[in-house]
Amino acid sequence: MQSFEQLAQRFQQYFAVDHFPASTPTLYNPNRYFLQLGGKRIRPVAVLMGNELFDEINPDAWKVATAIELFHNFTLIHDDIMDEAPLRRGMETVHHKYGNSTALLAGDVMQVQSYDYLNRIDVSYLQRINNIFIITARQVCEGQQLDMDFEKMESVALDEYLNMIAMKTSVLLAASLKIGGVLGGASKGNTEHLYEFGKSLGIAFQIQDDYLDAFGDPSKFGKQVGGDILANKKTFLLIHALEVATDSQKAELKQLMAENPADKVEKVLAIFKACNVDTWANELKDKYYADAMNHLDEIAVMSNRKGPLQELAKFLIKRDY
Amino acid sequence: MQSFEQLAQRFQQYFAVDHFPASTPTLYNPNRYFLQLGGKRIRPVAVLMGNELFDEINPDAWKVATAIELFHNFTLIHDDIMDEAPLRRGMETVHHKYGNSTALLAGDVMQVQSYDYLNRIDVSYLQRINNIFIITARQVCEGQQLDMDFEKMESVALDEYLNMIAMKTSVLLAASLKIGGVLGGASKGNTEHLYEFGKSLGIAFQIQDDYLDAFGDPSKFGKQVGGDILANKKTFLLIHALEVATDSQKAELKQLMAENPADKVEKVLAIFKACNVDTWANELKDKYYADAMNHLDEIAVMSNRKGPLQELAKFLIKRDY
Repeated sequence: MQSFEQLAQRFQQYFAVDHFPASTPTLYNPNRYFLQLGGKRIRPVAVLMGNELFDEINPDAWKVATAIELFHNFTLIHDDIMDEAPLRRGMETVHHKYGNSTALLAGDVMQVQSYDYLNRIDVSYLQRINNIFIITARQVCEGQQLDMDFEKMESVALDEYLNMIAMKTSVLLAASLKIGGVLGGASKGNTEHLYEFGKSLGIAFQIQDDYLDAFGDPSKFGKQVGGDILANKKTFLLIHALEVATDSQKAELKQLMAENPADKVEKVLAIFKACNVDTWANELKDKYYADAMNHLDEIAVMSNRKGPLQELAKFLIKRDY
Repeated sequence: MQSFEQLAQRFQQYFAVDHFPASTPTLYNPNRYFLQLGGKRIRPVAVLMGNELFDEINPDAWKVATAIELFHNFTLIHDDIMDEAPLRRGMETVHHKYGNSTALLAGDVMQVQSYDYLNRIDVSYLQRINNIFIITARQVCEGQQLDMDFEKMESVALDEYLNMIAMKTSVLLAASLKIGGVLGGASKGNTEHLYEFGKSLGIAFQIQDDYLDAFGDPSKFGKQVGGDILANKKTFLLIHALEVATDSQKAELKQLMAENPADKVEKVLAIFKACNVDTWANELKDKYYADAMNHLDEIAVMSNRKGPLQELAKFLIKRDY
């Protein structure tokens, strides 16, 4: 059994090769540039951990982990185009550096490469793993579209928002763990618990992310607090606030969002606190975290094999703020 | 043995179902809209014909044909974004109707759907067919990037341009035929000849397309003549003209391209004719057509089985202008 840290390091080494042909550097150099920006590589490590929960790591797990990391990076390149984001991880985004058309095409071919890695695994589970991957890929696209749709809507119901977040950010983590389980020879029941563990954990992570953007300690959080509020971004906090606020609080919130005064963040936070949005968000996060842990408990393997996944959960969901 | 016409009609029927989930209509309706714009469906028919050259049509050929048609449509949606094209087949393009972000995402998920159809075929040849498909998908992206690169370059060598055209427009037709052959149980040698038949035919088609845009009879060609010249598009004709023109003709060509006078088409055509670009293009097209036919001849099946593919070649390469 290897720790999250060990597997992350081993994956970094495995992944540090050139994933693209030597031809057509104008297409592939943007992809090389983007991949070397790094990332936490959580999803590929989740494949390896899902596998090792049940058995020694299957050599094919490295290929699937690579496929999933390439797929994730393809979605980031395209998301950055859609969001018109100039920076990612403090560096220029692909479309900002190479232009929209090349970024579009670089993302397209990055998706092709992910299927190339998938297609190298043993044929005995190729169809089953492809199937999980394809369903998930479709959901990730649906999640991104819903996110864009919601940004244009006056209000969004919490359950719709939860569904969008699950698709946009959780199902790929969930599928990574599940495919790892399949490669480890897990039963259908066990792979389903693994999937639900990842899905709930991903939702808890997103609630935490929204919470930290509003209430986090900037010295620990690493980015400026209040960015979502300034951008009028729909978050768990805003959606809940609009559900529970009094009519006058609601009117004030909408005025702040429309007029963007200098003290907007401060005033929106005051309303959030008056509505107990911070407590509510922490409780919702804890609920999803507990959900995740229940699914992990239900997996029928020796509990001492579950250490790395507990570690992953703690790595994603911090408790020191 | 079914004719091109019969297979095209049968494919139209098979393809006329909903290829997308009922959820998230804001993502999938743009794809439904685009698919109902129609198209000649040449590539999927090529899969069926490549199959039937060797054996009765394998039920999986319909799935692969669908995958290839979806992949082709994904590339068209993204190409239209890159080209900022307002119209396709006389109707609004997806990005023009639904916005760039949705068009980008609709294309992405159309690519996912193509792998979904591929993944439904019998596992005994899944890996092999996926492999042909993936290599081809990558080449199509490379071709599009090279096309964009070339548009920014002062001059492009004919062999580089030929390579780009092969990737952008021919390899998907070639791969369609080859995969059809695999599904029909063809030998490696036969599938390679089928591939080369399609590749040469695709190049001949593109030379013809460039020729017709400049020299075609508007009443037969169906679109305005001279569009490529007006747009300074790099074509077989322009590339060859720049290779063989005298210094003064070259200078005049470049001036016309820079200044876009009212009589630009007329004057560029005069230079093309003075350089015998029209004769050269017809000869080059004939050479690739003959190449294609030689590969078809080399395929080791009864020659009476080759009728539909000869018909396909004649459908693509017309001789009445």
